[in-house]
Amino acid sequence: MPTSTQVQLVRRPQGWPVPEDFRTVTVDLPDLGPDQVRVANAFLSVDPYMRGRMNDAESYVAPFALDATMTGGAVGRVVESTSADVPVGAAVTHDLGWRDVAQGDAARFRVVDDDLPLSAYLGVLGMTAFTAHVGLLQIAQMKPGEVVFVSGAAGAVGSMAGQIARLKGASRVIGSAGSPAKVARVRERYGFDAAFDYKDGHVYRQLRAAAPDGIDVYFDNVGGVHLEAAIGTLNRDGRVALCGAISGYNDEQAQPGPRNMARIIQQGLTLRGFTVGFHPQHYPAFVADMREWVSTGQIAYDETVIDGLDHAVDAFLAMMRGETTGKTLVRL
Amino acid sequence: MPTSTQVQLVRRPQGWPVPEDFRTVTVDLPDLGPDQVRVANAFLSVDPYMRGRMNDAESYVAPFALDATMTGGAVGRVVESTSADVPVGAAVTHDLGWRDVAQGDAARFRVVDDDLPLSAYLGVLGMTAFTAHVGLLQIAQMKPGEVVFVSGAAGAVGSMAGQIARLKGASRVIGSAGSPAKVARVRERYGFDAAFDYKDGHVYRQLRAAAPDGIDVYFDNVGGVHLEAAIGTLNRDGRVALCGAISGYNDEQAQPGPRNMARIIQQGLTLRGFTVGFHPQHYPAFVADMREWVSTGQIAYDETVIDGLDHAVDAFLAMMRGETTGKTLVRL
Repeated sequence: MPTSTQVQLVRRPQGWPVPEDFRTVTVDLPDLGPDQVRVANAFLSVDPYMRGRMNDAESYVAPFALDATMTGGAVGRVVESTSADVPVGAAVTHDLGWRDVAQGDAARFRVVDDDLPLSAYLGVLGMTAFTAHVGLLQIAQMKPGEVVFVSGAAGAVGSMAGQIARLKGASRVIGSAGSPAKVARVRERYGFDAAFDYKDGHVYRQLRAAAPDGIDVYFDNVGGVHLEAAIGTLNRDGRVALCGAISGYNDEQAQPGPRNMARIIQQGLTLRGFTVGFHPQHYPAFVADMREWVSTGQIAYDETVIDGLDHAVDAFLAMMRGETTGKTLVRL
Repeated sequence: MPTSTQVQLVRRPQGWPVPEDFRTVTVDLPDLGPDQVRVANAFLSVDPYMRGRMNDAESYVAPFALDATMTGGAVGRVVESTSADVPVGAAVTHDLGWRDVAQGDAARFRVVDDDLPLSAYLGVLGMTAFTAHVGLLQIAQMKPGEVVFVSGAAGAVGSMAGQIARLKGASRVIGSAGSPAKVARVRERYGFDAAFDYKDGHVYRQLRAAAPDGIDVYFDNVGGVHLEAAIGTLNRDGRVALCGAISGYNDEQAQPGPRNMARIIQQGLTLRGFTVGFHPQHYPAFVADMREWVSTGQIAYDETVIDGLDHAVDAFLAMMRGETTGKTLVRL
């Protein structure tokens, strides 16, 4: 009988997750019903938003249930199928991650073109880059000639957001990251005009120095003092895409918001939150842009790959601690 | 020689303003130059935003200069003119308040229709109601059928915002105010579907009880815990018009922002700040709506009138303390 090895949440983490919050189980898989598929996962995605789902409180999406297998982005190949639309051998993306073998209704799996390494469908052509594209262009409505600031600029979403800003005609792209090596990578590999190490000192002062004429758009992956610094630096009619707030995800108490909310009124600023799942209508435009940029070598993308489902929790924690670069993936 | 008696700021208030922060002077007025007018002010407007201008820090608009006469909304009649466009006898609105006689280039004065009591041009047909109209319809993009929450609902802007919401087809309009008498007025006179006294207890719980299905739009005059409660109650794709934050205007330290900023991401919320002066293109639509509502008796508006320039500072402070109802005016 086919089996699936899966990672379950057994306890709500207090602050930073620890190994005891999880367990790995192997379950027997039933025979396929009509119009179902079985998929051998090749890569699993670990993402910051998953930390929110480990809490009981409502987050971006529903909490993970206790004693149940977690879900998340994954890509793999169909190994058995009762569906004509999703045949054996097809490469598919889906949300049944945190397991080596996924199985379910064919409608839950999306067949991809299979002309790039499979991991690309979780990164540069997946939710990660789509999040950057929607956030920058639809949510923050970035226009050519504007100054853009991206936090978490060495991360999976941030490195994409900064490069998309450049490719869409931003006049200046500024990034923040958490180490000198990351700052160098943001400047040299991702082509940001300026970058700073937020652990080096006062975020507001560093941002002001990098943006003497202020900023027009802020793509926020971080929240906290970064958001406050950005609000203090935004020009009139500036816009913020609130994508993530990783600085607070492991806090046991919610952080207070920015102390300079009054500046939102004074400068006529707009702060808009989003999760990409609610914006599927923009997916075709994203794919058109990204396929062109990838095929012409105009966009750099990086992956940190960690091998083995046994190390999936380690991969997740390394990503949360900022120890990985680009998109963090678990290879099976 | 004609004179003008004027109120000047002589010291930046620390916390709540005190009489010693101001002085009254009488100055001689020069003869009119070409295309100038002299206006006997009938009413002066006192508004919450003026508190911000008394600080040295940047506010919605530039700070008041020390040892100079303050400015602000006013309405009066032309008593001398060298301008064909703004003749003697015309009723005019302008921003040279805090004085009994105003004088300057004719272009600075706007002739009004003069078919309503002059005070109306500072309130129901003035900046106050225009602020409510722009904030609700343009900034928060309120749609028919939505649930709307307005803080400071007994105030000049709030009472207008709630009534405009009703007239534009909101399915439910909820207000907060600072006394039982105000709450009764908000329900009975301004026709809100529900209202609560924020001094009575937990704002979030009272708002939730009044809005069991959540809210779609929040018109914020108050900031602080009201904003946090609204963010916690907004439905998916909800919108906030950030108009004012009177709860913090007299604080010596800036308040921290809402602790539930993460919900902005999770629910796809939009927070947008504005000051009405940047949205003049929407003025004609406002006047068309408001003239119809006033002429058909569909909108209630209130004024608290305090007599005498000597009491202008008292009027301002009474308004800030929430002791006045509707639009607060100084009559000369």
